[in-house]
Amino acid sequence: MARAWELVRRPLGMVKAGDIALITRESPSLGAGEIHVRNLWLSVDPAMRALMTKVEGYMEPYALNSPMPGRAVGEVVESRVPEFKRGDKVFHTMGWRDEASGPASTFTKLPTEPGIADELWLGLMGMAGATAYFGLIEVGRPKSGETMFVSAAAGSVGSTVVQIGKILGLKIIGSAGGTAKCAFIRTLGADAAIDYKTPGSLIDKLKRAAPEGVDIYFDNVGGDHLDAALANARVGARFVECGMIQTYNFEDARQPVGLGYLMRIVAARITLTGFSIFDFEHRIAESRREMARWLRAGQIRSCTTVSEGLESAGEAFLGLFSGRNTGKTLIKL
Amino acid sequence: MARAWELVRRPLGMVKAGDIALITRESPSLGAGEIHVRNLWLSVDPAMRALMTKVEGYMEPYALNSPMPGRAVGEVVESRVPEFKRGDKVFHTMGWRDEASGPASTFTKLPTEPGIADELWLGLMGMAGATAYFGLIEVGRPKSGETMFVSAAAGSVGSTVVQIGKILGLKIIGSAGGTAKCAFIRTLGADAAIDYKTPGSLIDKLKRAAPEGVDIYFDNVGGDHLDAALANARVGARFVECGMIQTYNFEDARQPVGLGYLMRIVAARITLTGFSIFDFEHRIAESRREMARWLRAGQIRSCTTVSEGLESAGEAFLGLFSGRNTGKTLIKL
Repeated sequence: MARAWELVRRPLGMVKAGDIALITRESPSLGAGEIHVRNLWLSVDPAMRALMTKVEGYMEPYALNSPMPGRAVGEVVESRVPEFKRGDKVFHTMGWRDEASGPASTFTKLPTEPGIADELWLGLMGMAGATAYFGLIEVGRPKSGETMFVSAAAGSVGSTVVQIGKILGLKIIGSAGGTAKCAFIRTLGADAAIDYKTPGSLIDKLKRAAPEGVDIYFDNVGGDHLDAALANARVGARFVECGMIQTYNFEDARQPVGLGYLMRIVAARITLTGFSIFDFEHRIAESRREMARWLRAGQIRSCTTVSEGLESAGEAFLGLFSGRNTGKTLIKL
Repeated sequence: MARAWELVRRPLGMVKAGDIALITRESPSLGAGEIHVRNLWLSVDPAMRALMTKVEGYMEPYALNSPMPGRAVGEVVESRVPEFKRGDKVFHTMGWRDEASGPASTFTKLPTEPGIADELWLGLMGMAGATAYFGLIEVGRPKSGETMFVSAAAGSVGSTVVQIGKILGLKIIGSAGGTAKCAFIRTLGADAAIDYKTPGSLIDKLKRAAPEGVDIYFDNVGGDHLDAALANARVGARFVECGMIQTYNFEDARQPVGLGYLMRIVAARITLTGFSIFDFEHRIAESRREMARWLRAGQIRSCTTVSEGLESAGEAFLGLFSGRNTGKTLIKL
């Protein structure tokens, strides 16, 4: 018997506990060419919320009443192919369950990289790290001395963007909710932290933190954060449109987002570029090489919020939207 | 004595007749190194509305109680420099008045280009033509066979974008208000015209006209047109953010613009780029060369709405916002 989280109802608005359920099902028997894996670490990402409802032009949403896919690291417990041996560590996308089996081709052996813990392949050495790296380098096109605003700067991607930005010589303003997270952002090297939960306009807070204006905005939030960045952008600013967590839980996915400073796109010749790591996946060796180098040099550190046990995954996922996590959210099985 | 239109009150919301006034003042006497010009043609542009109120990060707004600047073509009537002779045709930016004088360096002789009428230097051969040309070529990066949506397609820049787009082999959907303008857009070569004034959702109208989706959106309008383009954009679409006439007359410049499809920037990896012709002014010889070639080959035509007499300029300007013009709006003195 194996357990897996399944989507049992497409959420309307904020995800609720009853939208997903931990289901126990018979484990399938292993066929020829297949391997069987016990999961060790699961990745929990805000983008999963977007896949729970159909967004036109986005990826296919999760199927109902079927284990939710997700990135995971596991250990081979049984193998019917010569390439994998019992005990091998593997990466795969059949997460949100305690065990996974299938054709060997759907699993990838973890690269041997001395000093890199298993779970890092779901964080800095995985998609979260690559998202921060390629989003900032390729879309943000940073130049030393420029000013960058990062929203959700205490989150998985945000905390990595802040650290890479410091390595590249940027002045960084991060936003997060609450004093603890703001203090955390400063420990990552941010020059200023904006607590969006305190009273007052986000536009004014950003203006005080960056009176010179913003050259790069790394957007994980959308909505009022995007508007504040538009209001404070310098001529020729680049906006990396990586995510809009503020809108993921709207009851109506089409609820309009009000922007008061939209005309500044024209006036200040701002470029907004939608970014998806899938366009850069073929170059992941490059971001892994840089991350490994920075990790060994102590210039970057892995920031995680870890929950124990598969049964904790639902709560950990809901926590992403109430701001309970700092850094990458992981489930340790 | 000389007459000039002056801004007497910064408009709140829609420009009203009393915001600008035709004022008569003493003509200054001509100093050494100066020339005196009688204006023949004046350019009237929607962007002038934006300069009547202060928009942060945009150009300096017009001064109150002082002749409004604007692009004009005139004829030298008196010269105190050897480079200009009586009868020379010149281009300058002291429009909205019947005569202009000042240092010779503020005037430019009209280039000699056989078969090009004087007023074309304010249209296809001037900024409007260059805006369409560089906006489409440099920001839109069109490939033959792609689909482009152009808002305000019957306007000065829009009508030129439609024609250049056809030369480059694009499928083109233009939007405009009313059946006459939609018919006009089709005579320019547009494959489909959307009348935004008829009942029904602009999103659905665009979907019917371009079921394959939009590769390029040339934005002159903002607001609901921008949202419709976001909703219908293909993966990797380019948005040329040239203007947002829909918001120029908002009573509060910060009145939020509601966008329901903002998340598609991320999902479809759309790039929105604010465009100003001032970044390309140094390359205007290139757009003029192409325009002259297309004009002579009969591949493009100048579309204008001409009003007679300086006193008509106020009404002509207001007409830009009530949709009375097709093509470039000019005043013939």
